Amino acid sequence: MKSPGDRVIPVLYGASYSVYTRICLSTFGMKAVPFRFEALDVFAGDGPARARLAGHPFGKIPILHHGDLTLYETLAITRYIDDRFEGPPLQPDDAAGRARMNQFISIVDTQVYPVLVWGLYVPKSEGRKPKPGTLGKGRAVLAALETLAGPEWLCGARPTLADAYLAACMDYIIDSAAGNDMASNAPRLMNWWQRAQALKPKA
Amino acid sequence: MKSPGDRVIPVLYGASYSVYTRICLSTFGMKAVPFRFEALDVFAGDGPARARLAGHPFGKIPILHHGDLTLYETLAITRYIDDRFEGPPLQPDDAAGRARMNQFISIVDTQVYPVLVWGLYVPKSEGRKPKPGTLGKGRAVLAALETLAGPEWLCGARPTLADAYLAACMDYIIDSAAGNDMASNAPRLMNWWQRAQALKPKA
Repeated sequence: MKSPGDRVIPVLYGASYSVYTRICLSTFGMKAVPFRFEALDVFAGDGPARARLAGHPFGKIPILHHGDLTLYETLAITRYIDDRFEGPPLQPDDAAGRARMNQFISIVDTQVYPVLVWGLYVPKSEGRKPKPGTLGKGRAVLAALETLAGPEWLCGARPTLADAYLAACMDYIIDSAAGNDMASNAPRLMNWWQRAQALKPKA
Repeated sequence: MKSPGDRVIPVLYGASYSVYTRICLSTFGMKAVPFRFEALDVFAGDGPARARLAGHPFGKIPILHHGDLTLYETLAITRYIDDRFEGPPLQPDDAAGRARMNQFISIVDTQVYPVLVWGLYVPKSEGRKPKPGTLGKGRAVLAALETLAGPEWLCGARPTLADAYLAACMDYIIDSAAGNDMASNAPRLMNWWQRAQALKPKA
């Protein structure tokens, strides 16, 4: 049953360079939910203050407004979008499938983002060397993802939130030092990425 | 409908000092699901190797075995326990409630654990000073939790996974430098904690 709230357009505050904003943008896209995007650069001088004004107590992005509801944290925003709006379901139908999806999402949060994005991509993009040992860690993360990835989408026959999470990082991963040897060591991921380009946000 | 798999006892590998192991133990307790606990100390010399053998590619804990399924990452394990077994539901019934729960969980992962546990409790327990600015951050995290906490349980009239996450950190939070002034600045959380002591794992 639709409630009147469904007619209120959700508003996402964030920055298109931000992995976590990208994940939310992809989720809206996969769900085909109309939304408004408000650019909020947290690296600008007034960015953290603007993020606090928009409802994030730690001055970060992304932030979602929907009617009276203000939400921060991507875990909360993406599941809310999937839960609250019509459109294709973005979580697997069975408990084991959902568990795999949550495992993927947690690996992105705890390994892909800190090791492959901040540990390898960011130093490379700034002409700095990564900390010793980071390249080995990055390769271990890619190997774990390669083991888990399904032959079509990451968690089965249709895209889920796990695909949105990993897709949002892929440009950075491929451009990281570990990403250089990805094509030869992670054929499933490379095959998945051909398909998952479609999930990249348009905003 | 129950499948034969429901009769297989799940096995959790972890250490009782570990916040994330505690979260999984509390989840089993709240759900009243029988399980077996296998102590695995990742700080022991062979800990990471044993964790890899048990199925965690990064040599960490906790890890869940259930029949043929091996799962790592607490996000995946706790939701799987809630999803897969009978017992009281550990997630709110409505989309906004579930969103609040996910927001709490993410705040524990991204703020409570790094700032209050590792940033304040661990240095204090080792007689070291925390990094400059950490105490202020810790207070901001407590203030955000105090704002979000419900009058009974964190997300409504019954405990959810959010309560398991925060309860697993509370002894460390109270013993952290920011925890010292918690009783006066976070009355809702202190009231909640009286109730939530019951969620502390028995293992």
